[in-house]
Amino acid sequence: MPLVSVIHGPNLNLLGLREPELYGTETLEALNLRLVEEARNLGLELELFQSNHEGELVDRIQQARERAEVLVLNAAGYTHSSVAIRDAVAAIRPLPTLEVHLTLPAQREPFRRRNLLEGVVKGRIEGFGGLSYLLALRAASELIAARGNLRDQ
Amino acid sequence: MPLVSVIHGPNLNLLGLREPELYGTETLEALNLRLVEEARNLGLELELFQSNHEGELVDRIQQARERAEVLVLNAAGYTHSSVAIRDAVAAIRPLPTLEVHLTLPAQREPFRRRNLLEGVVKGRIEGFGGLSYLLALRAASELIAARGNLRDQ
Amino acid sequence: MPLVSVIHGPNLNLLGLREPELYGTETLEALNLRLVEEARNLGLELELFQSNHEGELVDRIQQARERAEVLVLNAAGYTHSSVAIRDAVAAIRPLPTLEVHLTLPAQREPFRRRNLLEGVVKGRIEGFGGLSYLLALRAASELIAARGNLRDQ
Amino acid sequence: MPLVSVIHGPNLNLLGLREPELYGTETLEALNLRLVEEARNLGLELELFQSNHEGELVDRIQQARERAEVLVLNAAGYTHSSVAIRDAVAAIRPLPTLEVHLTLPAQREPFRRRNLLEGVVKGRIEGFGGLSYLLALRAASELIAARGNLRDQ
Amino acid sequence: MPLVSVIHGPNLNLLGLREPELYGTETLEALNLRLVEEARNLGLELELFQSNHEGELVDRIQQARERAEVLVLNAAGYTHSSVAIRDAVAAIRPLPTLEVHLTLPAQREPFRRRNLLEGVVKGRIEGFGGLSYLLALRAASELIAARGNLRDQ
Amino acid sequence: MPLVSVIHGPNLNLLGLREPELYGTETLEALNLRLVEEARNLGLELELFQSNHEGELVDRIQQARERAEVLVLNAAGYTHSSVAIRDAVAAIRPLPTLEVHLTLPAQREPFRRRNLLEGVVKGRIEGFGGLSYLLALRAASELIAARGNLRDQ
Amino acid sequence: MPLVSVIHGPNLNLLGLREPELYGTETLEALNLRLVEEARNLGLELELFQSNHEGELVDRIQQARERAEVLVLNAAGYTHSSVAIRDAVAAIRPLPTLEVHLTLPAQREPFRRRNLLEGVVKGRIEGFGGLSYLLALRAASELIAARGNLRDQ
Amino acid sequence: MPLVSVIHGPNLNLLGLREPELYGTETLEALNLRLVEEARNLGLELELFQSNHEGELVDRIQQARERAEVLVLNAAGYTHSSVAIRDAVAAIRPLPTLEVHLTLPAQREPFRRRNLLEGVVKGRIEGFGGLSYLLALRAASELIAARGNLRDQ
Amino acid sequence: MPLVSVIHGPNLNLLGLREPELYGTETLEALNLRLVEEARNLGLELELFQSNHEGELVDRIQQARERAEVLVLNAAGYTHSSVAIRDAVAAIRPLPTLEVHLTLPAQREPFRRRNLLEGVVKGRIEGFGGLSYLLALRAASELIAARGNLRDQ
Amino acid sequence: MPLVSVIHGPNLNLLGLREPELYGTETLEALNLRLVEEARNLGLELELFQSNHEGELVDRIQQARERAEVLVLNAAGYTHSSVAIRDAVAAIRPLPTLEVHLTLPAQREPFRRRNLLEGVVKGRIEGFGGLSYLLALRAASELIAARGNLRDQ
Amino acid sequence: MPLVSVIHGPNLNLLGLREPELYGTETLEALNLRLVEEARNLGLELELFQSNHEGELVDRIQQARERAEVLVLNAAGYTHSSVAIRDAVAAIRPLPTLEVHLTLPAQREPFRRRNLLEGVVKGRIEGFGGLSYLLALRAASELIAARGNLRDQ
Amino acid sequence: MPLVSVIHGPNLNLLGLREPELYGTETLEALNLRLVEEARNLGLELELFQSNHEGELVDRIQQARERAEVLVLNAAGYTHSSVAIRDAVAAIRPLPTLEVHLTLPAQREPFRRRNLLEGVVKGRIEGFGGLSYLLALRAASELIAARGNLRDQ
Repeated sequence: MPLVSVIHGPNLNLLGLREPELYGTETLEALNLRLVEEARNLGLELELFQSNHEGELVDRIQQARERAEVLVLNAAGYTHSSVAIRDAVAAIRPLPTLEVHLTLPAQREPFRRRNLLEGVVKGRIEGFGGLSYLLALRAASELIAARGNLRDQ
Repeated sequence: MPLVSVIHGPNLNLLGLREPELYGTETLEALNLRLVEEARNLGLELELFQSNHEGELVDRIQQARERAEVLVLNAAGYTHSSVAIRDAVAAIRPLPTLEVHLTLPAQREPFRRRNLLEGVVKGRIEGFGGLSYLLALRAASELIAARGNLRDQ
Repeated sequence: MPLVSVIHGPNLNLLGLREPELYGTETLEALNLRLVEEARNLGLELELFQSNHEGELVDRIQQARERAEVLVLNAAGYTHSSVAIRDAVAAIRPLPTLEVHLTLPAQREPFRRRNLLEGVVKGRIEGFGGLSYLLALRAASELIAARGNLRDQ
Repeated sequence: MPLVSVIHGPNLNLLGLREPELYGTETLEALNLRLVEEARNLGLELELFQSNHEGELVDRIQQARERAEVLVLNAAGYTHSSVAIRDAVAAIRPLPTLEVHLTLPAQREPFRRRNLLEGVVKGRIEGFGGLSYLLALRAASELIAARGNLRDQ
Repeated sequence: MPLVSVIHGPNLNLLGLREPELYGTETLEALNLRLVEEARNLGLELELFQSNHEGELVDRIQQARERAEVLVLNAAGYTHSSVAIRDAVAAIRPLPTLEVHLTLPAQREPFRRRNLLEGVVKGRIEGFGGLSYLLALRAASELIAARGNLRDQ
Repeated sequence: MPLVSVIHGPNLNLLGLREPELYGTETLEALNLRLVEEARNLGLELELFQSNHEGELVDRIQQARERAEVLVLNAAGYTHSSVAIRDAVAAIRPLPTLEVHLTLPAQREPFRRRNLLEGVVKGRIEGFGGLSYLLALRAASELIAARGNLRDQ
Repeated sequence: MPLVSVIHGPNLNLLGLREPELYGTETLEALNLRLVEEARNLGLELELFQSNHEGELVDRIQQARERAEVLVLNAAGYTHSSVAIRDAVAAIRPLPTLEVHLTLPAQREPFRRRNLLEGVVKGRIEGFGGLSYLLALRAASELIAARGNLRDQ
Repeated sequence: MPLVSVIHGPNLNLLGLREPELYGTETLEALNLRLVEEARNLGLELELFQSNHEGELVDRIQQARERAEVLVLNAAGYTHSSVAIRDAVAAIRPLPTLEVHLTLPAQREPFRRRNLLEGVVKGRIEGFGGLSYLLALRAASELIAARGNLRDQ
Repeated sequence: MPLVSVIHGPNLNLLGLREPELYGTETLEALNLRLVEEARNLGLELELFQSNHEGELVDRIQQARERAEVLVLNAAGYTHSSVAIRDAVAAIRPLPTLEVHLTLPAQREPFRRRNLLEGVVKGRIEGFGGLSYLLALRAASELIAARGNLRDQ
Repeated sequence: MPLVSVIHGPNLNLLGLREPELYGTETLEALNLRLVEEARNLGLELELFQSNHEGELVDRIQQARERAEVLVLNAAGYTHSSVAIRDAVAAIRPLPTLEVHLTLPAQREPFRRRNLLEGVVKGRIEGFGGLSYLLALRAASELIAARGNLRDQ
Repeated sequence: MPLVSVIHGPNLNLLGLREPELYGTETLEALNLRLVEEARNLGLELELFQSNHEGELVDRIQQARERAEVLVLNAAGYTHSSVAIRDAVAAIRPLPTLEVHLTLPAQREPFRRRNLLEGVVKGRIEGFGGLSYLLALRAASELIAARGNLRDQ
Repeated sequence: MPLVSVIHGPNLNLLGLREPELYGTETLEALNLRLVEEARNLGLELELFQSNHEGELVDRIQQARERAEVLVLNAAGYTHSSVAIRDAVAAIRPLPTLEVHLTLPAQREPFRRRNLLEGVVKGRIEGFGGLSYLLALRAASELIAARGNLRDQ
């Protein structure tokens, strides 16, 4: 089964506990369960990781390069400040990275308008809460299938 | 069956004919067929519209207010210049508008970084080509289901 | 009786139905009735027009040039994006254009701070809801009277 | 009779003497007479004040809080530089302040585009010369009447 | 005979009537006659179109794609605001678009410095009044001849 | 006893009466009483002054130069606009000025981000309401003691 | 005894060794001793932590959420670059965070003017060297007492 | 004898006492004596005024309009913030105002680069310490003579 | 025969040798021959000059003032940096200067968007390679003829 | 006799011939005669130079270093663009450079607001036409005298 | 033998594997071998470190303070975002830090123009690929020798 | 022997005489001797040139195109203002240009942050004083060797 790596960035471990009017009441654990179930339906293997450390996220993104078919990444606060994470996403290309956000960052504080991932991701899904991740898994599934078709021709 | 209104903005009538390295070779007609099929699978009725005229797009967005459950909107070039379309999207709230783009506009010319829809849409899916629309239909389906669940409680 | 042309821009057809906390509950129809009545009191003939189409607004502004003594214009969202409407207002000078807004646009989103009509209107009244239009009619009446006085001397 | 406080900012004491191509030839005294007459017609009591001193204008705005029903304010040059006057206008809320300008400041030098009163006034009338004040008195009269109606219900 | 499509943007229907100190006294009709005559001399067929409507201009630009050899475009006010027209010009490439202006827009108001056509036109002629169009026809004629020469080799 | 001069800027005379959701309900009189009491505990003499007039504030700051050991200054709205007050604070150096704010100005309107005192004060305490002043008195007391220690060595 | 968590950001481990003309000669160890003594006088328990790692600081801020009554935070260089730390401070609200700086960052290099903590801290004390922390402890003590009073009523 | 009005702005009363490395050690009194002597040599009557109050400076500038032949103005800190003073200088035209600075403001803090007097003064002399004023008196003398010559012709 | 002065700016001596994908393969010599031929057809005398030295270009532009009827100027890199050349072009008015570029500078690096000639040239032709110059000669010919017609009337 | 070097920048050779409404009708030759006469009165030797070439101006400024006591410099257009001239002025310090302008550059086009000499000149005199130079000679004379006094002590 | 510490920042562990068109095909291991060999030739001891973690880089830079004579630093992506690393480099002064880049960052994306190390490094070498490091070692060797010479005198 | 052309820009002729705290005390002559010696060691022929004239520098850069293998360029002040020099460097490609600075320009005045050579040089070495040039010669030597190796394969 093709592997999809899902990486959650800083403070997402507090999901459901923190600012529920913004992020909802579902915990990261519950969201991960939903993702696992959806992956099973789509015939995908899933690898889940969360960290508050920029360096650990860089390490993990680099590892996806050898193991995964698609990377689903919610870099959270690092989206707006980390050139290192951007460079890691660029470094693992052509592996496609799908950027995910629970909210629409550009609708919030001005500093969230600056998105360092912009030039290097394949696509972006934002604003749907946990559903953003589920849509990304479906997109991953389609991208993998499309590549398979190409290879089969 | 709940109705979803899909509105294509200016120049999308040339899809498949224009700048294929950017937009692919699928025509708007072919894409619309895929959308109709997907909608049928998801149990949704579909209404499809394309125009190059800002005013007609405003008119159509206003009409969605009485007829549709969700609006899927690719405002194309007007995304970056039309306050009138933004105000129309705001005016039909709480009807949710899902913003869709074939490419990642912010990866292109600087003037495409300014997005006037930003403050008023529910979510955004961009960069996946025609797949962006399909994911939006799925999101629409989930949003309608979730609302149904709320009403049923 | 001197003719005053009143032109309402995009989305004003939804007045009273849309975002009432911002725009109040009076419909465009009701507001127009108030304007007609006020015009009668002031001895003015009134011509009323609304459109969501930038091109139609340009056409109508151009027509005021031959028919009206004063133009009262609420360009709504096009205030912030339309060079074409600005150029039309400039083209019909010395016919005076009075700019009207229901709210104070500069108190809202940043993109509403850019006002393309700024260099070409005679005066501006904003923030008084429907009363903004009524004050504009009174101003129109005074301007016409003053011009009459000049001519009589 | 409800009291309306009219406050003229710096250099308005030179009205009619200074830059007549911009501000006309009517003196402040003559304008004040027109305002008194209009107020009498509208059933309003009027309080008139002019100063070149920012601190005196702040003091006077604060005093309106206990005495007046509406404040009509032409802060002139302080419109563009005085946070203290803005804070005074904010401090007397919910007393409504109507901002008035003889010219359209944004059509002049760039530093006049910055308006510190923007977030705190009820409405703004600009560009009509002395007529701007007369329209403001009429607006004040309508606002007082509307509030009276509310109270009577 | 090769066809050149000449498209005039908003407010150009008022040419000769509006702001003559800026645009001269020649009407659009008279200018069009001069263009027809020049085209005849150059052995070109001419198609002439004017509209105040952004959407109609987009439609017409798209149609040039199948019919014309060169597009001569004066987008007037839409030059500075319309991403949709830019996208249409991009979409009809490699058909060359020659941008024309009567005046030098960058010498006028600051908002005319932003030119959305910049990245997609073949060349630009500005500041010569009606002569700008005549020079564009001559350029068109040379471009068509050069292409013919290439094909003949 | 060492003298500390406390200067309150414009609109602080309305403290407790104005915008209580922002500034609380304690009046300036009550706050001053708390300051007097705290000063007594810390062995400091206190001089209190409030004015809405920029010039009077400049005069008073200049006078601190000869009389006081420390200046505690809440310049309120003038913080963001007055070069004259900044120059006065610079002129009385090395007398230390402690800047105080009831709220965190940078969390409010954009124009409050510009702080002209920035280059010339010794330290700043902001966001604690009346407690900001009390902390400043304690800081003043420590600074005076530290200087005494230096002198005693 | 109520617990106050004090978190020192990057390079503060070199305090007293590094750039003494800017930061003084007191080491972090010595400062911590002063804090412990002051806390004892104020009846507070103290938890002290320093790290150069952004991720460890995020982890520790998150932990304060369950253990401490007040967080005293000197994020040092991360103040100007870390959205992740800002989001952590926001996530632990309503626990109050008091921001502390030894110097006045805005008086130094331009990049230190950008403060990402600005929207989420309760108050800020800066420019007093080690005394900034002592004042923060006193502020913490007052905030805890005030909350206690509220609870006792 | 023709009258020249010399107006010194805020904090210039501290000249010689304040920041001598920047402004030198000559007091305002001593400088004024030098000016009186130079005026006598040039056959000019002199009127000298200093104030820290923006409003008083506006009043005095207005009075120059009727009394003086030339105004020599060092608006000090108000140069960079006062639209009211600028408007007063504009209002007394064609009376020429000569702007004077002891230092070169643009070589100091960035906020001193903004000069509101720029559009309305006749000439500017800066950077020569007290000599700047003496040169301004000589310029005033030449301007008066030149005007006299014109009148005599 | 009327004289047209054609001035080529820096690095144009390398035309045809340098960056041919941008500037084509025609040398400056070959281009000059084409210009001479076209001038002969149009009944114009031609003066050709190239220099890499800003000062020599200023000298030559000044000389056109006495000798030529029209100046055709491609200032190349100095277009974006030279106030001295701009001032020279302004100084020779009313002699008309026609600005010419081989490419569309604004489509290239951002620093080429700044055009110091903008306020002082009569018209501009850009993006047509060597054809830009030929069109400029034709424009020059028409301008001279039109002036002649005026003189003949 | 102490030598003062006066350097005129580009296009000043056209003085009196070019744009007389801006620069007056006095030629450079006539102005130079006035300067020579004034220098004789002040007991100064004068060296006069004009060039349109940036490099020649740099060379000449460098030579002043060994020969002159004061440099009077009107860099004209190079004031706004030449880092090389600024560096030359810096390189000859402590020789004082007095900057002179006929007009007030900051009142003209925006690009004249950028002054590269700003950080390195001793003083600046602008806006007085030819009188600006005469005042500079007087200032030079006073600076030389003051230095002499210092040396004599 | 004097010790030089070489620190490689984030994603440099992928050197040779990632984006070879930008960074070449040499791995970090191979580059390190070349550095060791060059160091031996120059009589330097070498310490090599790579990390993706900002905090670890800060720790290591701090340790250089006690151990090394020169620090050679390629902070990669953190160059553009890390105030903490800048502060660490500042903290270890006067130990000289030599900044190294494989490419010319300013030629790439706009966010790479911001360099936080700028104010604190001794020198910078960029754009030479691996050769940048070798040149830095040679520079280190010369700096150490020069310091030795100073000490020997 | 391969030829390396070394070009020194404006004011470098004053090296050692001017601002020694910034540029050291070594004269250009002495530095050139060191360069000649180093070149001999590296087996390179050297061509040395200095000019204060932008045009002469452009001429010389163009000549390198036919004669030299590598260009070492310190454009000094022209680095920040000269598009003509940039275009010359671009025009001689693929000849590699190595940019050299004695200091780190970006650490000095803001206008030195703008580097027009940025997009066209091969590499840059800055901040090492005269050593910057020596390192550039070594880099040139390696680049020539590497190219030789390629050719030999």
